[in-house]
Amino acid sequence: MYVLGLDVGGTSSRALLLDASGRRIGYGRAPGGNPAAHGTGTAAANIRRALEPALLGVDPAEVAGAVVGMAGFGALDRAVFDQMWASAGLRCVPAVTGDLGVAFAAGTAEPRGTVLIAGTGAIAARIEDGEPVAVSDGLGWLLGDQGSGFWLGREAARAAVRSLSRGESDGLLTRLVAEEIRDADNQDGRAGGWPPVDGRAEAIRLVVHAQGRSPLELARLAPLVSRAAAAGDPDALKIVATAAGLLCATVAEVRQEGEDTPIVLAGSVLTSEGPVCSAVRDGLGAPTALAGDGAAAAAWLAAKEAFGLDREAAAGLHRRILREV
Amino acid sequence: MYVLGLDVGGTSSRALLLDASGRRIGYGRAPGGNPAAHGTGTAAANIRRALEPALLGVDPAEVAGAVVGMAGFGALDRAVFDQMWASAGLRCVPAVTGDLGVAFAAGTAEPRGTVLIAGTGAIAARIEDGEPVAVSDGLGWLLGDQGSGFWLGREAARAAVRSLSRGESDGLLTRLVAEEIRDADNQDGRAGGWPPVDGRAEAIRLVVHAQGRSPLELARLAPLVSRAAAAGDPDALKIVATAAGLLCATVAEVRQEGEDTPIVLAGSVLTSEGPVCSAVRDGLGAPTALAGDGAAAAAWLAAKEAFGLDREAAAGLHRRILREV
Repeated sequence: MYVLGLDVGGTSSRALLLDASGRRIGYGRAPGGNPAAHGTGTAAANIRRALEPALLGVDPAEVAGAVVGMAGFGALDRAVFDQMWASAGLRCVPAVTGDLGVAFAAGTAEPRGTVLIAGTGAIAARIEDGEPVAVSDGLGWLLGDQGSGFWLGREAARAAVRSLSRGESDGLLTRLVAEEIRDADNQDGRAGGWPPVDGRAEAIRLVVHAQGRSPLELARLAPLVSRAAAAGDPDALKIVATAAGLLCATVAEVRQEGEDTPIVLAGSVLTSEGPVCSAVRDGLGAPTALAGDGAAAAAWLAAKEAFGLDREAAAGLHRRILREV
Repeated sequence: MYVLGLDVGGTSSRALLLDASGRRIGYGRAPGGNPAAHGTGTAAANIRRALEPALLGVDPAEVAGAVVGMAGFGALDRAVFDQMWASAGLRCVPAVTGDLGVAFAAGTAEPRGTVLIAGTGAIAARIEDGEPVAVSDGLGWLLGDQGSGFWLGREAARAAVRSLSRGESDGLLTRLVAEEIRDADNQDGRAGGWPPVDGRAEAIRLVVHAQGRSPLELARLAPLVSRAAAAGDPDALKIVATAAGLLCATVAEVRQEGEDTPIVLAGSVLTSEGPVCSAVRDGLGAPTALAGDGAAAAAWLAAKEAFGLDREAAAGLHRRILREV
């Protein structure tokens, strides 16, 4: 008998198959399957592509349980999903859930605590019995996602265009952002006009570049903030401190002061070591755990349920699975 | 002999014809003619539509001079524009310039000072000899335009979704924003689902609504901030104070402290009486003038040049024209 865990996000879908002892049997990876972002059809097709390598050489009817952690799962057309699931030969009924509980489980075997995810977006939740019972932020790039990868990238671009517009082009963050945008323009064959005649013209060029693309592309500038902050750039240090403050405030909205349950940090902004992650850990003033692989966490949740594990056995399996992957 | 003034923006193009004494002879209005926003073809066609009623019953060959103040004029294909101009029967060569000098002239006959425009966007300039010599902000909705109509509207939406997400739906600004969005959804026939099940669901609905449209549409929420602030709503008062601080900082970037040249306030956020305009005037701590009609200002600039007016005559004409329109 096997269990299956799926971690389905906006940019990737990952599936992990475990046996009853927690041994890794198969793993698959495919493009994103967030139905709110891609529609259920594309989402189901991509999830199917992740399932195939995970189930290779195994009778899918022997999968006893499955948990699917899916960003945007509220938009899922369940009939379409179930058809895809059956067509893969799977007979168990999967528990399709959001990404908050799975991200929390990727950092701890405890049933209660707080999870903070900062990837392109940013969201926090209070978790009880493995489920989110209160949520803060997660309000999208235009009106929320404070301290997220998008937010960091936008602040980097904003600081750069302000500096350039004032004729200040020497700052490290400003130079890194301008180089990144120039390289992107070069790749698009829009290189003509570099270098611009003056700082104001270069600022306007950056603005036109940013406004001409999907705003979320600004998230790719987020690592430049960490790089510049590590080198002491004052603009970058200010952005890092503000981002950390915003992320801690998002946690504070769903967590009581002095609470000693675990705080799990997830998402690319928090799981890559650097100034933002350090500043958030310092700001939280409570023990934190970094989230491991989401597919492994989903598989662990499936195993707990399917095999009826007690608390101790579940904790042991959690250590094995999230260490192994 | 006549002079012609054109004020060409993103949403409207206006043309005013004056005679040598400053008497208003003709006026025309048409949709926007910003070539950066609409392309030169549409821009030229709309400008032509504004010219026709302004020139009605007049021999266009008798127009001795013209000034065209045009937002986005850097993107203008001058050959296309000149062809349109000639096809209207006009023989004088128009001075095509940006909107900053014209907005400044709409508030004062002085040659030097500062202009602050806050409409959908926000920009300030130091003016010398009628021309901008230093510019601050104007960096677009995504990275700049701090304190603009877009900025006010986005902050209103942001405050509303944060409050709703926390289960606080009683604030005046929150209610006004939620009503406005619900009405817009009703008009689109997307009324299903109102009212949402709880505050978090309503917050997400507002986020989806805002992210599904052009971000600039958020500018239509700006008047709600003034309305709520006038009624003492704490969120709105905070947004107004922050906006005013940002706009004053934009001015400070291009103005020396203690300078006593005039500051002209232009754009819908600053020319409609209300809390934002009052707070900006208080914050600037210098005499301000409200900009009048841009087409009249452009016509005044044309008259100064075409009729070789001395300073006193120019000031007299300025008073007459900008009072009359």
